[in-house]
Amino acid sequence: MGASSEALTQVLIPVAALVGIGFALLQWLLVSRVKVSSHDSSNGYKVKLIEADEEEECIDNIEISIKCAQIQHAISLGATSFLFTEYKYLGIFMGVFGVIIFLFLGSVKGFSTKSEPCTYNKGSTCKPALANAVFSTIAFLLGALTSVLSGFLGMKIATYANARTTLEARKVMGFLLAANGLLVLYVSIYLFKLYYGDDWEGLYESITGYGLGGSSMALFGRVGGGIYTKIADVGADLVGKVERNIPEDDPRNPAVIADKVGDNVGDIAGMGSDLFGSYAESSCAALFVASISSFGINHDVTAMSYPLIISSMGIVVCLITTLFATDMFEIKNVREIEPSLKQQLLISTILMTAGIAMVSFFALPSEFILFDFGNEKEVKNWHLFFCVSIGLWAGLVIGYITEYYTSNAYSPVQDVADSCRTGAATNVIFGLALGYKSVIIPIFAISISIYVSFSLAAMYGIAVAALGMLSTISTGLAIDAYGPISDNAGGIAEMAGMSHKIRERTDALDAAGNTTAAIGKGFAIGSAALVSLALFGAYVSRAGIKSVDVLTPKVFIGLIVGAMLPYWFSAMTMKSVGSAALKMVEEVRRQFNSIPGLMEGTAKPDYANLLEQRRQQQNCVKISTDASLRAMIPPGALVMLTPLIVGTFLGVETLAGVLAGSLVSGVQVAISASNTGGAWDNAKKYIEAGGSEHAKSLGPKGSDCHKAAVIGDTIGDPLKDTSGPSLNILIKLMAVESLVFAPFFAAHGGLLFKFI
Amino acid sequence: MGASSEALTQVLIPVAALVGIGFALLQWLLVSRVKVSSHDSSNGYKVKLIEADEEEECIDNIEISIKCAQIQHAISLGATSFLFTEYKYLGIFMGVFGVIIFLFLGSVKGFSTKSEPCTYNKGSTCKPALANAVFSTIAFLLGALTSVLSGFLGMKIATYANARTTLEARKVMGFLLAANGLLVLYVSIYLFKLYYGDDWEGLYESITGYGLGGSSMALFGRVGGGIYTKIADVGADLVGKVERNIPEDDPRNPAVIADKVGDNVGDIAGMGSDLFGSYAESSCAALFVASISSFGINHDVTAMSYPLIISSMGIVVCLITTLFATDMFEIKNVREIEPSLKQQLLISTILMTAGIAMVSFFALPSEFILFDFGNEKEVKNWHLFFCVSIGLWAGLVIGYITEYYTSNAYSPVQDVADSCRTGAATNVIFGLALGYKSVIIPIFAISISIYVSFSLAAMYGIAVAALGMLSTISTGLAIDAYGPISDNAGGIAEMAGMSHKIRERTDALDAAGNTTAAIGKGFAIGSAALVSLALFGAYVSRAGIKSVDVLTPKVFIGLIVGAMLPYWFSAMTMKSVGSAALKMVEEVRRQFNSIPGLMEGTAKPDYANLLEQRRQQQNCVKISTDASLRAMIPPGALVMLTPLIVGTFLGVETLAGVLAGSLVSGVQVAISASNTGGAWDNAKKYIEAGGSEHAKSLGPKGSDCHKAAVIGDTIGDPLKDTSGPSLNILIKLMAVESLVFAPFFAAHGGLLFKFI
Repeated sequence: MGASSEALTQVLIPVAALVGIGFALLQWLLVSRVKVSSHDSSNGYKVKLIEADEEEECIDNIEISIKCAQIQHAISLGATSFLFTEYKYLGIFMGVFGVIIFLFLGSVKGFSTKSEPCTYNKGSTCKPALANAVFSTIAFLLGALTSVLSGFLGMKIATYANARTTLEARKVMGFLLAANGLLVLYVSIYLFKLYYGDDWEGLYESITGYGLGGSSMALFGRVGGGIYTKIADVGADLVGKVERNIPEDDPRNPAVIADKVGDNVGDIAGMGSDLFGSYAESSCAALFVASISSFGINHDVTAMSYPLIISSMGIVVCLITTLFATDMFEIKNVREIEPSLKQQLLISTILMTAGIAMVSFFALPSEFILFDFGNEKEVKNWHLFFCVSIGLWAGLVIGYITEYYTSNAYSPVQDVADSCRTGAATNVIFGLALGYKSVIIPIFAISISIYVSFSLAAMYGIAVAALGMLSTISTGLAIDAYGPISDNAGGIAEMAGMSHKIRERTDALDAAGNTTAAIGKGFAIGSAALVSLALFGAYVSRAGIKSVDVLTPKVFIGLIVGAMLPYWFSAMTMKSVGSAALKMVEEVRRQFNSIPGLMEGTAKPDYANLLEQRRQQQNCVKISTDASLRAMIPPGALVMLTPLIVGTFLGVETLAGVLAGSLVSGVQVAISASNTGGAWDNAKKYIEAGGSEHAKSLGPKGSDCHKAAVIGDTIGDPLKDTSGPSLNILIKLMAVESLVFAPFFAAHGGLLFKFI
Repeated sequence: MGASSEALTQVLIPVAALVGIGFALLQWLLVSRVKVSSHDSSNGYKVKLIEADEEEECIDNIEISIKCAQIQHAISLGATSFLFTEYKYLGIFMGVFGVIIFLFLGSVKGFSTKSEPCTYNKGSTCKPALANAVFSTIAFLLGALTSVLSGFLGMKIATYANARTTLEARKVMGFLLAANGLLVLYVSIYLFKLYYGDDWEGLYESITGYGLGGSSMALFGRVGGGIYTKIADVGADLVGKVERNIPEDDPRNPAVIADKVGDNVGDIAGMGSDLFGSYAESSCAALFVASISSFGINHDVTAMSYPLIISSMGIVVCLITTLFATDMFEIKNVREIEPSLKQQLLISTILMTAGIAMVSFFALPSEFILFDFGNEKEVKNWHLFFCVSIGLWAGLVIGYITEYYTSNAYSPVQDVADSCRTGAATNVIFGLALGYKSVIIPIFAISISIYVSFSLAAMYGIAVAALGMLSTISTGLAIDAYGPISDNAGGIAEMAGMSHKIRERTDALDAAGNTTAAIGKGFAIGSAALVSLALFGAYVSRAGIKSVDVLTPKVFIGLIVGAMLPYWFSAMTMKSVGSAALKMVEEVRRQFNSIPGLMEGTAKPDYANLLEQRRQQQNCVKISTDASLRAMIPPGALVMLTPLIVGTFLGVETLAGVLAGSLVSGVQVAISASNTGGAWDNAKKYIEAGGSEHAKSLGPKGSDCHKAAVIGDTIGDPLKDTSGPSLNILIKLMAVESLVFAPFFAAHGGLLFKFI
């Protein structure tokens, strides 16, 4: 240990981040060199999956490749325009909320500029509360900007990628995001230290603002994007598939472009911000708890940087896995994609376990002291190895279980498909039951990791377990981004009028994509549960609460109201999607009725026609944009205001109850919603694909069974892409916000009870 | 106070109970004197609602009245046979579980027959643990038998009642149930006292077994009956309404008799047992907490009996309300039913508030000491007045809010109906959102009552708040039973081939019934939340836990796993309904296909035909019976075994977490499921009735909108009648079971952690 290891740490973290970014850029370069009409297939094995046929078609038909490029362009334009409109709102929010943070935290000690004695490191002097207010605000803005950047870059890459480069593009995203987040955080800490010097308590308290910024942007991204994508999707499906009986993504449907734009802004940009938020928050939670441990007080830079080193190791491991996977397993057909992704996840988990062992033994002192709510706790370095590893492996378990419940290769989804025989009602009943059931094992996995890491290293253990789960974020995000990119690829193929063979392939890709998206969501929710708990623990420490006893009235009412919040939130988001989808349906119907020849367009409409339609599609894009931006405000306000109102009026204990309640209830709602939706989508795809005797007996497209399955799929859309994945942000965000405002609530909170 | 008030108490409670039973019997006598074909209309104003037209028809057509009687008989026969089959299973369960209670509790002190020093009343000697084991077992069996009796009598009355006596029959139920429960409890305490003498701790500890018995029967009744009714209902609807396009309850549908049987065994018998369970448990919780208060230790019989006096007062108040309502408000048409029921609820709430004030000032000493988890708490009698009243009024708020969200007179249900324009998918999305939203205000109402009663009188406050909410049980249950009885009346009218005019009336009655059933469920869930919390508090006291700190790993994993249990449970019950409904559908389809002339039967099939069909309907009844009894075992086992397993292996703290988690999460799932289901059902009825311009634009029956609404209704069936209402039993039952077994867990529990 000592100076040499400190120097090593100082080098290792930025280098890992830069390598990640470099690799991402290299991949992007490769992607960008693939021309839509070129014959070059040098950029990797997987490209061939779609290429083989597409290639022929492109050679045969130069028109199609131009069309591809134009659709691509339209989608990219729509997505960029939506995001910029969204950013205007977010900019206002950032400004207002930045001021709130400054005022609330500044008022803790009445905007005094005098230095204070430290809370934990007795005898030392810490920077004034006003400085913490200023730096928390800066950290908040930095986090918010990084999050926006992550989402935006993700979307750009995804829309830049085209059908043939689906599988490369997703790699770019994972690495760029993880590395970007790590680098900004590292640099911020480094710069903040210039002012804070030896006051690490203040330094890491302020840094928590980074997590808050990241997560609040993620919330709006997820909710806004999620509503956007589902308005368009539901609207397109309801008129297209159900009423007009035309296939998914048929270019005659005026809402398809909006649908594809939605995939990019919701699933890609939203998910990017979401996972970035989890990552930022768990790092901040771990750093904050570490700053008041013995090695924090002793200023052991290497040990302090343990959470960041874990993340760096994650980037390296994912890089190795990616290279390894590319060379070792050549995927020959579409069916192998899902097992191959699972294998990659397994490999990165195994490699990461070794990586964690190395990091734990080299970076940490063999024994040290952590604070466990007032008590001191002796911890050994191998304890932390177990904490991180159990989080990591719990993530793998959640991923695999999610796959089992949402992939149409297994009986749960097949049962749901089978229940379509008796109509949409039984399909919905079975789907809901499946979602509820899929909660069981993930909750046990989360519980066990909480128990082990909590027992071994208190809140620090939970925080690093969350980081463990997120350490394979690059692989995980790659897996997640896979879904929407494939979906887009399929849509473009359909719209450009490519042959049915290609469409079948992209459908299979899309089915695999649904499963991988569900796996990604599983990771996001599982890590959110751990992160929230860690943040919750940090909040309790910072607010100076001795215990959160359920059997006190203040805590219990918090608990039950907190458990209600996910329902309130879901009610808002689902209703928004429902209402706006109705408007979309009206518009799509209007176009079908008023534009002559739209319905009669041949299967491959000529290019001019398509452009013509696109101009009308602006209406659909506009409906989605307006509705989603308006609709993201109430749920956003619910999440952002609840901790402020509860903390200010009901005090820190009730707020602790609210955080615990929303955590334990929100996790269940989120997992069941995501998996129910994923299962319905894949049950529909299972019937459409007709890959087995059983599936054939239910199909084909257009049969009564298939119609019932489409209804389930449509219901699942807002569940799996709007409410479900927004809920993990709800629980994380309320926790990190409470943590940031804890000093204010502790000083001035609980007004209502003070008056009674 | 003193001897005279003690004597008064001794008289008042049994007298109130007997008056309740007497009134119920009198009503029954009146009901039974109404002959189906008689012209006598002397038995009350409400009868005329249906009578007017029916009368004519009965005069015109003697065949129809014979048919009515025969259908009635078939339903009664089916219900009785199902219940007896169910009781065989329940008998076995009672035997086995009785032995478990005896063995577990007996082993606490190694089956010693030596007397022990008391836990709370220091210095006194209490009866041996073995005696508590014996008496707990006896109390368990008594509770179970009373619950079974309540359910059975309720069903008998409901099936005895016929179309014209709907509104009288429901009164009988409410009073019989409340009075019966009170009387058995009172007598048991009296008899147990013969052995226990001065050892009130032991006495009231043993009495908690009564609540466990009552609630465990309620669980099986609710789940078994709930699955039964929904298998038949879903099966009948899927083939009849969706495929064959024949109206609800059409006699051609082979599953209709099973459907009507289900209404009686599920909604009536199940609800009866459920509310009885809540009542028994909250009384037991209040008594147990009271026994260790200062007036318990001072052996103040009157103060001790406070919970029972409150219930007696409830019976008296409901009696007055019923008589009052009958004379004051004459209901002239069907539309007035819902407001009138609401008014009755309001009147009984107002009267009860006065009643509570009287009881609180006369029965309680003006100041006394309660134990608040080790601390002593000084409480005044007017504190308890507030506790009971706030529970009572919170019940009213929940009832009214539930009405708002489920009645088709208000915009929420109308919006859901409107969303059917764009198909079943938007209907489901809107319905789910409505259910989620309907959770908000009830949770705030429950939170406020918890906060107030908890702050004023700790766990005793919560227990009596629950009793307050349940004190209008007779009115509430009357309101609840209203639904299924009207539903049955409608079904019989349809099957007997009565005129459309009558069917329209019974449909309107049924719509009102859906709302009132939802109100009843709201009461059941709200009171369950309070009862569970009180039981939870009693459990914590009895298990000797100092605090239930969320921030300890043992408690937190309990909390998150507990929050998962309602999902696990719902997954099982929904899947059971779904799977068995598929079988039912097959059978109904088979009959339609294989029995010549079944589909072609005229709108009014002749009598011989109907009997012919009934013989085939045995198949449907058999499918329902077998499936529901088999299906009730896994969810039943989940609920009954969870506390035993968690307590034994993970210990009292984790179990405390599980109870808190399942409480805060289960309440939300239960409320949203019940209200979503109720709203879908009434949205459908709204379209069918076509009572407004808007409704007409969506209808008529058979339109696309209506078909979409039927799908929602079918999905809602298992939500509102199987999973939703079973969940309140889940949370109550786990709490009371933990309370009964607490001494065992405290002595021998937590094996797993002992080994690690």
